[in-house]
Amino acid sequence: MTTNQGVRPGGRSARVQASVHKAVTELLDERERGELTVPMIAARAGVTPSTIYRRWGDLNELLGDVALQRIRPDGEPADTGSLKGDLLAWGIQYMEETASVPGRAVVLDLLAAGGDCSGRCLEIARAQFGILLERAVARGEPVPDKDLIVDRLVAPLVYRILFSNQQLEEGYVEVLVDGVLEGVAS
Amino acid sequence: MTTNQGVRPGGRSARVQASVHKAVTELLDERERGELTVPMIAARAGVTPSTIYRRWGDLNELLGDVALQRIRPDGEPADTGSLKGDLLAWGIQYMEETASVPGRAVVLDLLAAGGDCSGRCLEIARAQFGILLERAVARGEPVPDKDLIVDRLVAPLVYRILFSNQQLEEGYVEVLVDGVLEGVAS
Repeated sequence: MTTNQGVRPGGRSARVQASVHKAVTELLDERERGELTVPMIAARAGVTPSTIYRRWGDLNELLGDVALQRIRPDGEPADTGSLKGDLLAWGIQYMEETASVPGRAVVLDLLAAGGDCSGRCLEIARAQFGILLERAVARGEPVPDKDLIVDRLVAPLVYRILFSNQQLEEGYVEVLVDGVLEGVAS
Repeated sequence: MTTNQGVRPGGRSARVQASVHKAVTELLDERERGELTVPMIAARAGVTPSTIYRRWGDLNELLGDVALQRIRPDGEPADTGSLKGDLLAWGIQYMEETASVPGRAVVLDLLAAGGDCSGRCLEIARAQFGILLERAVARGEPVPDKDLIVDRLVAPLVYRILFSNQQLEEGYVEVLVDGVLEGVAS
């Protein structure tokens, strides 16, 4: 899926994309995900179904693309003055967003869309950690590898949100962040 | 979904369940998952569609139930003589099975079926760890908490299989197992 690369802002292609994304977002508010069809989305967006098939391939890819836009962070992660604080703030916000009903649906849409789409989800998180780690280095703090943050913070949060019914608490994020920092010292 | 509880082996109910499960497994070998329908499965299994709706609710729940049977382990995990060896053997087998095309499809079916079904997936893994930990205690080894094994071994494996395109190596499982054991000592 390469729908976001090389789209000139304001161009016809970008306007079609924005209109189709808006149609999907509106329809997801009104109906069950399983009820959505490409002709329904095309009618709402004012484009032909073949425009959607040509650009996105199929419904799953389109829903994955919209989900990817939704998880793109609004800005830089919060700067709390320490790596521990930054990871904690990031983790708590990530947990709250992902555990919400629309958040869980977004994750499932990314997975249904397949490899490329869900892989970009990991890249977005890694880019955010890049910012946190640069700050920590500037402060003179010892820093973990990005992969350790993925393995010890992101993965357990996503796994437990997807595979358990338990309500996750902020204290759990704290345990995970301690695990990340423990890995730096060793 | 309570389809597996209280089913008397050999009873009519158990025979219907076995026949429907067999029909799903056969059809999944022959067709794309998205092509399967309840009437198609009912015809193959020799039952009425309403039997399926009454017992499983909908197609997603049925596919999730079949997926759950597939991930049920065949027996006790391998006994290698040490907790580290046992975790490594378990992790490598789990990685290979889950990263396979049918393995990934099973995980997505469990997620699509929703909370109950995917929660039982976690319970199955925890039961296996219970066996490993009992053995380690009998050997006099210090043991981690089951939740630490879930957070540091299962979660990163599942997360990376679902969200990245990279091929996972046995060396990666070793790093994760070391992380679990590091958590025991601290």
